Amino acid sequence: MAEYKAPIDDFAFTLKHLVKIDKLAQHDTFSEASTEMVDAILSEAAKVAEREVAPTNWNGDQAGATLDEQHAVTTPEGFKEAYQAFSEGGWGSLQFDPNYGGQGLPLSLSVAVNEMVQSANLAWSLCPLLTQGAIEAIHANASDALKQQYLPNMISGQWTGTMNLTEPQAGSDLALIKTTASRDGDQYRIKGQKIFITWGEHDVAENIIHLVLARLPGAPEGVKGISLFIVPKFLPNNDGSLGERNDCKALSLEHKLGIHGSPTCVMSFGENNGAIGFLVGEENRGLACMFTMMNNARLMVGVQGTAIAERALQDALAFAEERKQGIAPGAKTTSAISEHPDVERMLLTMRSLTEAARAIGFVACGGLDYEQTAEGDEAIAACASRVSLLTPIVKGWNTEIAQEVTSLGVQVHGGMGFIEETGAAQHLRDARILPIYEGTTGIQAMDLVGRKTLHDKGAAFAFLLHDIREDCKKAHDTLPAAEAIISKLLTATDKLEDAIDFLLKNTADHPRLMGDMAHSLLQVTGYVCGGWQMLNSWVACEQERQADGTNTEYLAQKEQTAHFYLQHLLPRYLGYSASIKALEEAIG
Amino acid sequence: MAEYKAPIDDFAFTLKHLVKIDKLAQHDTFSEASTEMVDAILSEAAKVAEREVAPTNWNGDQAGATLDEQHAVTTPEGFKEAYQAFSEGGWGSLQFDPNYGGQGLPLSLSVAVNEMVQSANLAWSLCPLLTQGAIEAIHANASDALKQQYLPNMISGQWTGTMNLTEPQAGSDLALIKTTASRDGDQYRIKGQKIFITWGEHDVAENIIHLVLARLPGAPEGVKGISLFIVPKFLPNNDGSLGERNDCKALSLEHKLGIHGSPTCVMSFGENNGAIGFLVGEENRGLACMFTMMNNARLMVGVQGTAIAERALQDALAFAEERKQGIAPGAKTTSAISEHPDVERMLLTMRSLTEAARAIGFVACGGLDYEQTAEGDEAIAACASRVSLLTPIVKGWNTEIAQEVTSLGVQVHGGMGFIEETGAAQHLRDARILPIYEGTTGIQAMDLVGRKTLHDKGAAFAFLLHDIREDCKKAHDTLPAAEAIISKLLTATDKLEDAIDFLLKNTADHPRLMGDMAHSLLQVTGYVCGGWQMLNSWVACEQERQADGTNTEYLAQKEQTAHFYLQHLLPRYLGYSASIKALEEAIG
Repeated sequence: MAEYKAPIDDFAFTLKHLVKIDKLAQHDTFSEASTEMVDAILSEAAKVAEREVAPTNWNGDQAGATLDEQHAVTTPEGFKEAYQAFSEGGWGSLQFDPNYGGQGLPLSLSVAVNEMVQSANLAWSLCPLLTQGAIEAIHANASDALKQQYLPNMISGQWTGTMNLTEPQAGSDLALIKTTASRDGDQYRIKGQKIFITWGEHDVAENIIHLVLARLPGAPEGVKGISLFIVPKFLPNNDGSLGERNDCKALSLEHKLGIHGSPTCVMSFGENNGAIGFLVGEENRGLACMFTMMNNARLMVGVQGTAIAERALQDALAFAEERKQGIAPGAKTTSAISEHPDVERMLLTMRSLTEAARAIGFVACGGLDYEQTAEGDEAIAACASRVSLLTPIVKGWNTEIAQEVTSLGVQVHGGMGFIEETGAAQHLRDARILPIYEGTTGIQAMDLVGRKTLHDKGAAFAFLLHDIREDCKKAHDTLPAAEAIISKLLTATDKLEDAIDFLLKNTADHPRLMGDMAHSLLQVTGYVCGGWQMLNSWVACEQERQADGTNTEYLAQKEQTAHFYLQHLLPRYLGYSASIKALEEAIG
Repeated sequence: MAEYKAPIDDFAFTLKHLVKIDKLAQHDTFSEASTEMVDAILSEAAKVAEREVAPTNWNGDQAGATLDEQHAVTTPEGFKEAYQAFSEGGWGSLQFDPNYGGQGLPLSLSVAVNEMVQSANLAWSLCPLLTQGAIEAIHANASDALKQQYLPNMISGQWTGTMNLTEPQAGSDLALIKTTASRDGDQYRIKGQKIFITWGEHDVAENIIHLVLARLPGAPEGVKGISLFIVPKFLPNNDGSLGERNDCKALSLEHKLGIHGSPTCVMSFGENNGAIGFLVGEENRGLACMFTMMNNARLMVGVQGTAIAERALQDALAFAEERKQGIAPGAKTTSAISEHPDVERMLLTMRSLTEAARAIGFVACGGLDYEQTAEGDEAIAACASRVSLLTPIVKGWNTEIAQEVTSLGVQVHGGMGFIEETGAAQHLRDARILPIYEGTTGIQAMDLVGRKTLHDKGAAFAFLLHDIREDCKKAHDTLPAAEAIISKLLTATDKLEDAIDFLLKNTADHPRLMGDMAHSLLQVTGYVCGGWQMLNSWVACEQERQADGTNTEYLAQKEQTAHFYLQHLLPRYLGYSASIKALEEAIG
């Protein structure tokens, strides 16, 4: 397998041309995010990802995390050292509030760093990722006292965080949660069992801050009766040192298809006197608090899709350039398999989907940064609704394309791809969790048609389609020769609009319709958004070239992936669009 | 996980209405294949698959096959007993020549039995499958003496067979083979190393008959200098008893993503004096001999795609009917997840793709049966060219849809799907080899555009398109209300014809074109053939209902999958067809 090399060029290009990070840096909030700072962060973070984290990936998969009889988890060799290097470098604190030790940089920049460490080792990266989510939930919802007590150590990486939602009977349906909390003075006692708790127990940091959903006595039934609690593994003393061990522990680890290095725990809370917990936000408002965390976590899982796709691409490319079989068209002797058109097709498909997914993910996260710099309620709301609309696309579409890209990664390797030592199979196994956790693709699709479309009567969608059409106009000015291709994207945009109209008009009379068309609508939107960002990338290539008169290998390659995406991958929307049309015919 | 239940209804329906096995039974060659016999074979074979083979699947995956220091392989618990039950029941001999102990039944019937045992345990099923392929190669190419000596024991299942092609430097490109053979009296001495040898060593039968490709001294370079040899593990004495151990052994087993129960061996031949081998067919004609075996093996691997898809479907369906989460449209309380439209979509996608793949595979194998009963060169050639055209579709398309179906199988299980104990992940892992071995999907696609289209100037394709259109006409008579849907299949057929015309007209001037469009053409053809068979199935449902006036649950379900396929899955061809169109625009 190839050594991971962070795609710094593509990060810088995406941040510059698609996120337009310069615009963010003009604002006081992000004045630190100068071009020089962005470049420095990308190249320094790449060193950590490439040298400290990536070497732990394959061995971590083979060894896996283990649990002993004292309920202690041992993570694979090198995980602890990689985590220390990451934390000490401040790589987990980029986007956080400087009042609690964060660096106040744009999320879109932090996302590039996240993608690197996720590519380097997806299983390992879940530890800092869950911590980031927990920091967000506490920052947005907890009292000042709790924030003072927990955030500095979490932002520094000294303590890690987890997210405790799922119970055996309550997976996608959190209304069924049974874990209980009861008031005990200023604190609460938590009792119950949670499953699928990522990094619920480990040995890479001194304390673990569990965020736990539970029900108070007499709470309303369903999701309106759930509260959120901080349940630390060790209760912190007032001076910040670690105090008593809390009444919670890992009972067992799951035996999973992939991300073996990530300890997925069955967690038991309160087997003795009840685990001590502290209420975050108001009683019975836990789900809303958790959603702060979950929305961003969904964006981050989408970015994981890009990350694992990138790693699979790099391995496949290295193999295809090395492996010689058969004679390619125009060649005289045995060729590298990368020269064969069908292998080239696979590699281009992998690269184009990965870059499109990266672009959508970064742009969506950039929306959260723009929300912070926007002035006036309307501008803020516009940013928020764009991010909100794109979130199920980033989570749903990016993780689905990761399945295809990692599977193609195996395919490019031929028979060797099926052999574990090659490493391609690990990416496929690791990737398989992404369309499941933090809400399945089906849940994302329902979120897209429901909360994100029907709820605002298609307003956010209309605004997105408007922007796509505007960008098509601009592209036409810069790339007059691309007219035929641009018009294909416009047609796709029209079809997407038709589908939304159809949904809006018929949902009331046909209650199953939203569920029946949700997946297809998510796919059409994903392919169209990918086309939009790839067209914008193509335009940016042309502009860069016009600006400084040079053509780099990177720009030529980006132009090729943009072209390939728009010509050969965008048309996949046609199948989904025809499926929606068939629903229309059925309604009559 | 659910207990495997052979889909006997769908086998019987497919054999009756799509293969039209009654027509075969009217011919002397297959006079045994009466409706009663077909039903008896399906139900008796189902017992073996369900009771003897299926219970070994999960444990076999967990334990895997192991190799000891004496180069002996131990297969997982129960594999040997299942193999004995299978062989003693005569289930490996159905389609073979009665002169050597076979039962002379149609291949299309034997394929149904193969599918059952493949669903039951894919890793295990490779042992009888490779044996069947070796029997075919020996039967078609070897001398009478070799046939007398080897076939009876192989057909009875007492000895098993293997296929030794691949070497580290020679995977898809067999021109690079280095294993040597040298004449030694009436026999040959073989020296070399082979990799990826499925069931190359094991403990389920007393002898293993290796078919080995090797080069004679002074043989022409490339594929025209390869010969085929029988290299038995134990040299048989003239009385049929086992004699001396031959100079060949398993050096190691691969650590694979899936099919852990199948020992994939690195085989060493002739480390001492050279392994004794016997020439099959003529010197330097080995590749042609091996292709007899490989073509049928490709059909059988396509059937494996159906088999693993069926198993994944059964598990997903059982889980979805059991698992309760959320409230489905129209329901009052928590629903089984199978009631949620998006889960229903996944289950219907799984079932429709599986049934379409089964139909194409069985019809293709039926073509080989019709070739045997056809009279006159022209009729025989017509059957042969149809099978030949469908082979890359069955191998390529059926195994690709198996990736989607097994992945959806995981998805339907949600978080539980990622846990190995659930069993859904095993199907995904096992399925991943199918688009690789016996020629990757890329190789199938090149076979489709090259040998199967350009070579005969599209004649076989024209004949296929003609049949599809004829069947559309017939469907219109039986199902007048389905006109709109039938016209979609006709449009798809027209687009397929356009793509073939484009290929035929432009290949000469554009040598890369065939490689560039191969994959898309394979996909379009696969989806159209699936649509064709699903439409014919729908017609057959209507005819059955008209004939006996009853509607069964099975017929209602088949009608539903046919409808779902034609409305929601067939349209996927649009994306591939648009990709071909983009190549057309690029040529200008």
